[in-house]
Amino acid sequence: MRIIVDAMGGDRAPEMPVKGAVLAVKEYDLEITLVGDEKKIQEVLKDLEYPAEKIKILNATEVIGMDEPAAISVRKKRDSSIVAGLNLCKYKEADAFMSAGNTGAVVCAATLSLRLLPGVDRPGIAVIFPTIEKPSMVIDVGANIDPKPLHLLQYGIMGDAYSRHILKKTNPTVAMLNIGEESTKGTDFIKEAHVMLKESKLNFIGNVEPKELFKGIADVVVCDGFVGNVLLKVTESFAFAATELLRRELKKSSLITKIGALMTLPALQAIKKRIDANEYGGAPLMGVDGRVIIAHGASNDNAIKNAIKAAAEYVNRRVNEHIIEELNSY
Amino acid sequence: MRIIVDAMGGDRAPEMPVKGAVLAVKEYDLEITLVGDEKKIQEVLKDLEYPAEKIKILNATEVIGMDEPAAISVRKKRDSSIVAGLNLCKYKEADAFMSAGNTGAVVCAATLSLRLLPGVDRPGIAVIFPTIEKPSMVIDVGANIDPKPLHLLQYGIMGDAYSRHILKKTNPTVAMLNIGEESTKGTDFIKEAHVMLKESKLNFIGNVEPKELFKGIADVVVCDGFVGNVLLKVTESFAFAATELLRRELKKSSLITKIGALMTLPALQAIKKRIDANEYGGAPLMGVDGRVIIAHGASNDNAIKNAIKAAAEYVNRRVNEHIIEELNSY
Repeated sequence: MRIIVDAMGGDRAPEMPVKGAVLAVKEYDLEITLVGDEKKIQEVLKDLEYPAEKIKILNATEVIGMDEPAAISVRKKRDSSIVAGLNLCKYKEADAFMSAGNTGAVVCAATLSLRLLPGVDRPGIAVIFPTIEKPSMVIDVGANIDPKPLHLLQYGIMGDAYSRHILKKTNPTVAMLNIGEESTKGTDFIKEAHVMLKESKLNFIGNVEPKELFKGIADVVVCDGFVGNVLLKVTESFAFAATELLRRELKKSSLITKIGALMTLPALQAIKKRIDANEYGGAPLMGVDGRVIIAHGASNDNAIKNAIKAAAEYVNRRVNEHIIEELNSY
Repeated sequence: MRIIVDAMGGDRAPEMPVKGAVLAVKEYDLEITLVGDEKKIQEVLKDLEYPAEKIKILNATEVIGMDEPAAISVRKKRDSSIVAGLNLCKYKEADAFMSAGNTGAVVCAATLSLRLLPGVDRPGIAVIFPTIEKPSMVIDVGANIDPKPLHLLQYGIMGDAYSRHILKKTNPTVAMLNIGEESTKGTDFIKEAHVMLKESKLNFIGNVEPKELFKGIADVVVCDGFVGNVLLKVTESFAFAATELLRRELKKSSLITKIGALMTLPALQAIKKRIDANEYGGAPLMGVDGRVIIAHGASNDNAIKNAIKAAAEYVNRRVNEHIIEELNSY
């Protein structure tokens, strides 16, 4: 299996993608092509030890910045690591693509070059949320910010396939994120999607509010990509804000509280691990005719390694093939 | 000043609304009319000491439940505490209305009976969010889940008036919640609202992502009520989930970690206080031609007292009059 890694994607590129790729080839049975500025990639690689035959480099002369407008940059920068890397997947020279770069650009380039699976109208980014009980998959968290009700049904079907074949769940429950549980609540868009999900063959358990989402009552939660993106970012930022507030309160505190804080550190770190993007690895871009994994821009080498592992699992468990089967059965 | 308190609203009604009203008349210079089941209200009052001349009761025979569909119940239950209480404001027999009951029903009944301020097309619920720096006001968090861009401009103007006259800020900054900072990001709705806000006289500083919101970089943040409601509920639920996870981790921990946790308690409680709805009190329903404060359904007596205080301030600071002035200047 060969996985393409966008060496120029992420806040600390090429260092983290390259180091993560090296960790991955050492730990897993796969080969990697690093796409990006060859000189800069070699600069990072030269200090690392790894089985040289398992890592190739494809030079790409352009970089799409983290904040560049997606559609324009994808069309203009044909030799960017994102566009060039995805082309390798398009021409079947690799099995999957992984990037911690500009998410909008990855979604746009993947949709244009790989196209969508038959029966899918829009791709969706699926993220595993930590909850009090079992984790929940939320789809979409930002690929499609102005969806139609039908897209939410398709997300449900894709999430169901992922839950069955990657997370090994039997008859996974699917819910829709809403501001109330009753089927009469929400916008017209939400109400229409509710009817479609209810009439489908999915194990649809109805609407969930954010409160229930964090309790983990559904295996798959579908939502509008705008709302899903806010959900994802609020969760991340709130975790950050809470830590920062704790730090400040502790500064003001007595010595005994400070000693106490030091002693609770192991428990706090166990929680941090649970909500830490670096532990969870990548989010699949579901619905494209290829395997694309998106990692957090702030990923460290371990997060990149986990995202590469997620890409390999997506290939091995034949998720796309299962999605097509499920969609065909409708 | 007379404030109407919905004695039947909230998860622990009538106990908490009645107890909160008693705390308020003891602490502040105001009079209260409790609206609801007179017998049940008396049952709570009889054990409390308070200046009897400052509390009146208006018997209302019906109750709108927390999860009842808003529009239908408001039309059917004309003698509910919400509808009857708001009518007292409509006929100028009171200065403000406070409820911890069904939010949708309060929004609907207030809009129908009090009508909107001239120049306002939709009401909006404004909530003060705790942030790392100064608090930010977010409007709307659920009154209007399918807004037009113009409504967001009106929210900006109302939030600006509130910030100036209640929070005493000079030239408050206004931002719009979006999934990216660039003006080219977001849905068509967001882009249109961005243009309107930018061309207004407001001190509009552009889009903010949830991350910036929690840093407190804007005094007022406007958003779609669906997204705002998700934002509010995610923040609440995440705080709950994090506490629960900490509790579970601590159970598994060593004795020394447990002792440490006990010692950090003062710092953790200081944070809890900062994000606790019971400390913050009520959220104004802005844009209606009257003064309506909505409290959290889970409010305790202290939260009710704070919400009543918020209602009194809304009256004293003449917020509605200032909103009308600002809107007229456009």
